[in-house]
Amino acid sequence: MPSISNKGIHMPESPIRKLVPYAEEAQKKGKNIYYLNIGQPDIKTPQVALDAIKNNTLETIAYSRSEGAESYRIKIADYYKRNSIEVSHNDIIVTTGGSEALLFAFGSIMDEGDEIIIPEPFYANYNGFSTASGVNVVPVISKIEDNFALPPIEEFEKLITPKTKAILICNPGNPTGYLYSKEEIKQLAAIVKKHDLFLIADEVYREFVYDGVEHYSILQEPGLEEHAIIIDSVSKRYSMCGARIGYLVSKNKDFIKTALKFAQARLSPPTLAQIASEAALDTPQSYFDDVKEEYVKRRNTLISALEKIEGVKVAKPNGAFYCIAELPVKNSDHFAKWLLESFDYNNDTVMVAPAAGFYSTPGVGLNQIRIAYVLNSESLKIAVKILEEALKVYKD
Amino acid sequence: MPSISNKGIHMPESPIRKLVPYAEEAQKKGKNIYYLNIGQPDIKTPQVALDAIKNNTLETIAYSRSEGAESYRIKIADYYKRNSIEVSHNDIIVTTGGSEALLFAFGSIMDEGDEIIIPEPFYANYNGFSTASGVNVVPVISKIEDNFALPPIEEFEKLITPKTKAILICNPGNPTGYLYSKEEIKQLAAIVKKHDLFLIADEVYREFVYDGVEHYSILQEPGLEEHAIIIDSVSKRYSMCGARIGYLVSKNKDFIKTALKFAQARLSPPTLAQIASEAALDTPQSYFDDVKEEYVKRRNTLISALEKIEGVKVAKPNGAFYCIAELPVKNSDHFAKWLLESFDYNNDTVMVAPAAGFYSTPGVGLNQIRIAYVLNSESLKIAVKILEEALKVYKD
Repeated sequence: MPSISNKGIHMPESPIRKLVPYAEEAQKKGKNIYYLNIGQPDIKTPQVALDAIKNNTLETIAYSRSEGAESYRIKIADYYKRNSIEVSHNDIIVTTGGSEALLFAFGSIMDEGDEIIIPEPFYANYNGFSTASGVNVVPVISKIEDNFALPPIEEFEKLITPKTKAILICNPGNPTGYLYSKEEIKQLAAIVKKHDLFLIADEVYREFVYDGVEHYSILQEPGLEEHAIIIDSVSKRYSMCGARIGYLVSKNKDFIKTALKFAQARLSPPTLAQIASEAALDTPQSYFDDVKEEYVKRRNTLISALEKIEGVKVAKPNGAFYCIAELPVKNSDHFAKWLLESFDYNNDTVMVAPAAGFYSTPGVGLNQIRIAYVLNSESLKIAVKILEEALKVYKD
Repeated sequence: MPSISNKGIHMPESPIRKLVPYAEEAQKKGKNIYYLNIGQPDIKTPQVALDAIKNNTLETIAYSRSEGAESYRIKIADYYKRNSIEVSHNDIIVTTGGSEALLFAFGSIMDEGDEIIIPEPFYANYNGFSTASGVNVVPVISKIEDNFALPPIEEFEKLITPKTKAILICNPGNPTGYLYSKEEIKQLAAIVKKHDLFLIADEVYREFVYDGVEHYSILQEPGLEEHAIIIDSVSKRYSMCGARIGYLVSKNKDFIKTALKFAQARLSPPTLAQIASEAALDTPQSYFDDVKEEYVKRRNTLISALEKIEGVKVAKPNGAFYCIAELPVKNSDHFAKWLLESFDYNNDTVMVAPAAGFYSTPGVGLNQIRIAYVLNSESLKIAVKILEEALKVYKD
């Protein structure tokens, strides 16, 4: 039998998706599951985007340009300008989701064996994209006690080697919900300039910031033009995860030229989804105001309910729609499976994402879970109640 | 300034797309261009697929499963069964175009420095996907004099090393239009079994076969279950290139399990396009009959017109919608640019794809071009007339 690649063998399973078979089994047994494991919001896609799809007049669903439709990129550049980020449409490549933007960025700046420093816990699929790209993740641990703030910059400095090509952050963070301050971004800017590295910022949750704090993009930082690569996506912003539209944004011409070669090889991003995404840029501000209000309400409900459970520690997120909670269990992977397989509370149970998969360092985060607050407040209350009851009877 | 990767530097430019700036310049000067360079058919997408998009009732464009919607995969398996290929929906992973299917296949079976043998000329982006995957293409030359038939199997055998992991064919071929016979597939089957290799067949043009010949899929070949990987796509079959839906098909469970990890990392294929693609499977046979009749007419028009030009040699394709033509020029790259920059015939000119980019061996195919017969017969006649007039005055 022909053999699988080492890369293939080492590709990590998704911590968000690997428990899906257990959930399916539980459903078959008639259990009702509250899904807190995946960042698939229940929020409606803006009507203007749905209408654009229904009213499209295409007779042939043809390729778009490899870098994305020009009209769309011009409107994206306008969006950034409204958000104090000065870029032109030529600084933008439309990708198939933020996922492809990450793959193109990794391929364009790193070779086999190169290193990328990432504060952990981080979005689990960074591990997958690194393995697929033959790149090594070098983690810097951020702590729940610090609300997952940026680790001291000396910790980064210690890890830089001739193989280091980039630092990657997610801001605000999935899975931490932490929003980096302007000061933290400036520290990162200084270190990437000093060591001639790229700074990749996954800013897909840019608009999900709460409590009056403001998002500071790496492309707002003066002098970072040649170093900054933004990963962006329509998935969460307009609750259209299934569109699979993202973008790469950079003022570094060599980088954009290189990423475009990767983009050309795969021909074009999805055409129908670009129509929806271009229209989504006309979403009225009231939509975002409502969505933000809803997420703040959910977050407050979730965090205050979690804090009341004995032995549970939780970081307070002020961005995105995730939080990391530390549980009084030894192994949250086992606990999450047990919730689906062996527990119910009035026939209900909860699906959560074990947090170990969001760390690169083995053995860290074993007692943590990630919760996505993508359900309404009433459901979240019930879900946390189920967790509370489960923790009363669960034994490691 | 931070540096681009070696991989990024070596990513080839697309031979189909690299002349686009010249074409745009020519258009600005008011020239009318006949586009024979890209496999973007002018054929309409089946109405049933367009209607499914217009009538969709999604309120949230959500992720689908990473392997594609189950209902869709079940219908794809039915499609294969109708085409004498016995697979279940669990043998199928829906991908973002055939492009992503190739990337997942390469990643799942090959590591940095591994080798894949491909008869050339081949679909140019195989070079790009190989570079992106850190894999080396080992070409076997097929010849225009033989109509680009499979090279003698001893030629493959000679090239097999411990690094060889797979043989890749495109059947029927882009850019050759050649359809491999059952006998040729059996030869390939024997060699991959003997050396324990994978056989990847890009069968996206499976239904575009003419003159009463029949397509023989690698998954129709008995005993090849553990070796065979099919790359497929809706792009050409339903003239919906911009949907970006393809699939991987294999009976090798380890392979599917591994490819699924790559699929999970990028979350899901596009949801809207899956709705269109699932509906497209209900396209009436009359649509395909009409399309096939149209392509045969176009091919016959094109080939007979080309054969009349002095010094032009052309292989007769009996599949897909491309042909390779040898021209009485030294460098078709230069000729193709010149057509756009410096030539017109009654203000018209032609855009073709220089064939060198479809070869991996340097210096081969320099006097060849690929023509995609994606325009109607009247346009093709004019386009060939323009080529003929151009060749009269062109000097290398």
